[in-house]
Amino acid sequence: MSEVLRRLDQLYAIGGGEGANRPGLSPEEDEAHRLVEGWMHTARLETARDRAGNLYGRRLGRRLGAPEVWCGSHLDTVPQGGRFDGALGVVAALAAAERIGRPLDCTLTVVAFRDEEGWRFGGGFFGSRAVTGRLSAGALDARDADDVSVRQALANRGGCLDGARGWLVPRPAAFVELHVEQGPVLADAGAALGVVGSFVGMLEAEVTVRGSAGHAGTTPMRARRDAGLAAAAFQVALADAAAAIPDAVATVGALALEPGASNVIPSSARVAVDARAPDDERLTRLERAIETAARRATAEHGCDVDVRVRSRTPPLIGDAAIRACLAAAAPGAPTIASGAGHDAQVLAAAGVPAGMLFVRSLAGGVSHSPLEQTAPADVEAAADALARALPCVCAAVDGLRRPRAGGLTSAPDRGTPPRRR
Amino acid sequence: MSEVLRRLDQLYAIGGGEGANRPGLSPEEDEAHRLVEGWMHTARLETARDRAGNLYGRRLGRRLGAPEVWCGSHLDTVPQGGRFDGALGVVAALAAAERIGRPLDCTLTVVAFRDEEGWRFGGGFFGSRAVTGRLSAGALDARDADDVSVRQALANRGGCLDGARGWLVPRPAAFVELHVEQGPVLADAGAALGVVGSFVGMLEAEVTVRGSAGHAGTTPMRARRDAGLAAAAFQVALADAAAAIPDAVATVGALALEPGASNVIPSSARVAVDARAPDDERLTRLERAIETAARRATAEHGCDVDVRVRSRTPPLIGDAAIRACLAAAAPGAPTIASGAGHDAQVLAAAGVPAGMLFVRSLAGGVSHSPLEQTAPADVEAAADALARALPCVCAAVDGLRRPRAGGLTSAPDRGTPPRRR
Repeated sequence: MSEVLRRLDQLYAIGGGEGANRPGLSPEEDEAHRLVEGWMHTARLETARDRAGNLYGRRLGRRLGAPEVWCGSHLDTVPQGGRFDGALGVVAALAAAERIGRPLDCTLTVVAFRDEEGWRFGGGFFGSRAVTGRLSAGALDARDADDVSVRQALANRGGCLDGARGWLVPRPAAFVELHVEQGPVLADAGAALGVVGSFVGMLEAEVTVRGSAGHAGTTPMRARRDAGLAAAAFQVALADAAAAIPDAVATVGALALEPGASNVIPSSARVAVDARAPDDERLTRLERAIETAARRATAEHGCDVDVRVRSRTPPLIGDAAIRACLAAAAPGAPTIASGAGHDAQVLAAAGVPAGMLFVRSLAGGVSHSPLEQTAPADVEAAADALARALPCVCAAVDGLRRPRAGGLTSAPDRGTPPRRR
Repeated sequence: MSEVLRRLDQLYAIGGGEGANRPGLSPEEDEAHRLVEGWMHTARLETARDRAGNLYGRRLGRRLGAPEVWCGSHLDTVPQGGRFDGALGVVAALAAAERIGRPLDCTLTVVAFRDEEGWRFGGGFFGSRAVTGRLSAGALDARDADDVSVRQALANRGGCLDGARGWLVPRPAAFVELHVEQGPVLADAGAALGVVGSFVGMLEAEVTVRGSAGHAGTTPMRARRDAGLAAAAFQVALADAAAAIPDAVATVGALALEPGASNVIPSSARVAVDARAPDDERLTRLERAIETAARRATAEHGCDVDVRVRSRTPPLIGDAAIRACLAAAAPGAPTIASGAGHDAQVLAAAGVPAGMLFVRSLAGGVSHSPLEQTAPADVEAAADALARALPCVCAAVDGLRRPRAGGLTSAPDRGTPPRRR
């Protein structure tokens, strides 16, 4: 077994239970970070942590003042998650640094971001949002099911973001993220690797339905204002609406009924909606579909509804120079759209030129599941491609004298004007 | 304010929060039992508890060997429950004993059963099932959300049912329960009180839907096996099917998605179904409708389903002699069907002649909600009617020399043959 696969197995074993179980800002994620820090030391990288708990392993560049290139992903997982999601991006970045061996002109940094999935506190992209100074207001006050706040969870592991403004560390000149595809496109195309050309836009919404509690035995069906039933009708209508928009998806993965007793008609239902579409026009159609489905389905059951969009991530296009380096390093790799949200998008939104390489997922592309699967040969090919791409990226950003501006943009990709001020 | 209303207020204040919050086998229910025990002492009743924690307040009969008549209900509530559900039946029974004042020939016992609602552990009717020896196998092993078992919760309050078989205390000759209607029928008829003629049958089922977890962003809509969406389609189909059966109802009050993260397609959904119908034919149709709706809705979404009926309570008809006493004590009170499950049905199923008096609910009959409402004058009328009815019931059962057999039966009510052996 290769070193990369062996390390993935060690990370997978943390926490026990079915699948990977390393929620963000948990002892299990801490253990994964300690493990990777040890491997960084073995690879002779200099390690550091920022105030959000993100982990960096640096090999300093040969040339003083040369830019810094980051490569990595996240080590946390959803409950009962897969072996490759996040972890492969960190472990393969480390393997690429080992395979490159020597210092480049620019500083090469392997990065492990905290809490990308947002399982415990909601939201997601905690580490990348924190380091780029893009955490939403109130993010530190979010609480988990045990009423522990992000602020407290961070303090418990020595972190603190109170008073933090802007970047926590010097901004890198580029970010490259390797990730499993989490979909069937590369497998269907017979390709081991794919260069991400664009990233879907994403909406996170909370739909709150309000009806009337009542006795399950004595309230006639037609006299009810059943918030749970209205929420169910909304889910069905939303799925139909999303299926009618090409390449759009909408998911209800979490739902809470109040008061939640089997013999009481629910008085309220809180529904978490995750909706994604490949361009702005379809994302806007999807947003309207959520609103329309919520109003209609709940009105039919005599309930009130409130739709709150918690976040909207616009669709983005990958940095051209980085894409060129990735394409050269992975000959024949098709260009692919990313349906998932990734830390790379957060860095891009913060003005860092960013690109992603996808590795083929097997088993129909299932992810966020113990069934997630990628072939050993593809894992090796991915690490090799990274080892070839990173010197190219370094040369590209260094050649520009100053960090490239713009990074991912939502405009078509033909020479974007500088966005930094 | 009357003593009955004052006492209801004191019980309502326990636990705080919106509405009544006294889950079965909780410190809040304990406090309610202690409060009522004190009132029993004030009323010069002799108090006792059985091994399940049920509370009894006895005024011994004048004649040695004369039968015992029970009157009462339960003191626990659903979360955010109402002021009258359960509590009124105990407090009004106590008021009736006080108004009767003197010993009757038979022993008169005010009863407060434990955990009728089954909020914390599921199931319900814990106290009445326990005292009649009718707890289901495994009932003591049921666990709450914090993994505390019924056995442990009982032990924490000095109870123990290990090794218990049959009745925990001598079987009474009759049981009378006063309860709010929890529906709009009496209010629509302009009647303060109603004599329960029959009790609806009830099914408790657990529907488990199994699909496949997957990434919310990368799994196309048509490639999904979304257990949460299949459960929602089942809820909608079930509500339609129940609405098509006259006077039948079906409710989903509790539902759990796994893994329950907003960006993961649910791999499984556990749905609690509460279904009721007024006679055996309609209850059987309803049971088939649950099964059919579950198979069809989940198959449409590529999911598997398992329907487990946890309990089936057949429809019952009230004891004729007790009904006659209640009708005489509440002149003009219409005969009404009970849509809710009550401790009286459990005692009837155990062979105790049982009857119920309903009190008018206002606010459209809403119950299991803080909006539950009954007029002060109706509360007083109910306590007065009980005080008139109980001596009649006592004389009726005493006149028979031995406990009447049969009690509630599922056959039409024309002189039922003895069912006791």
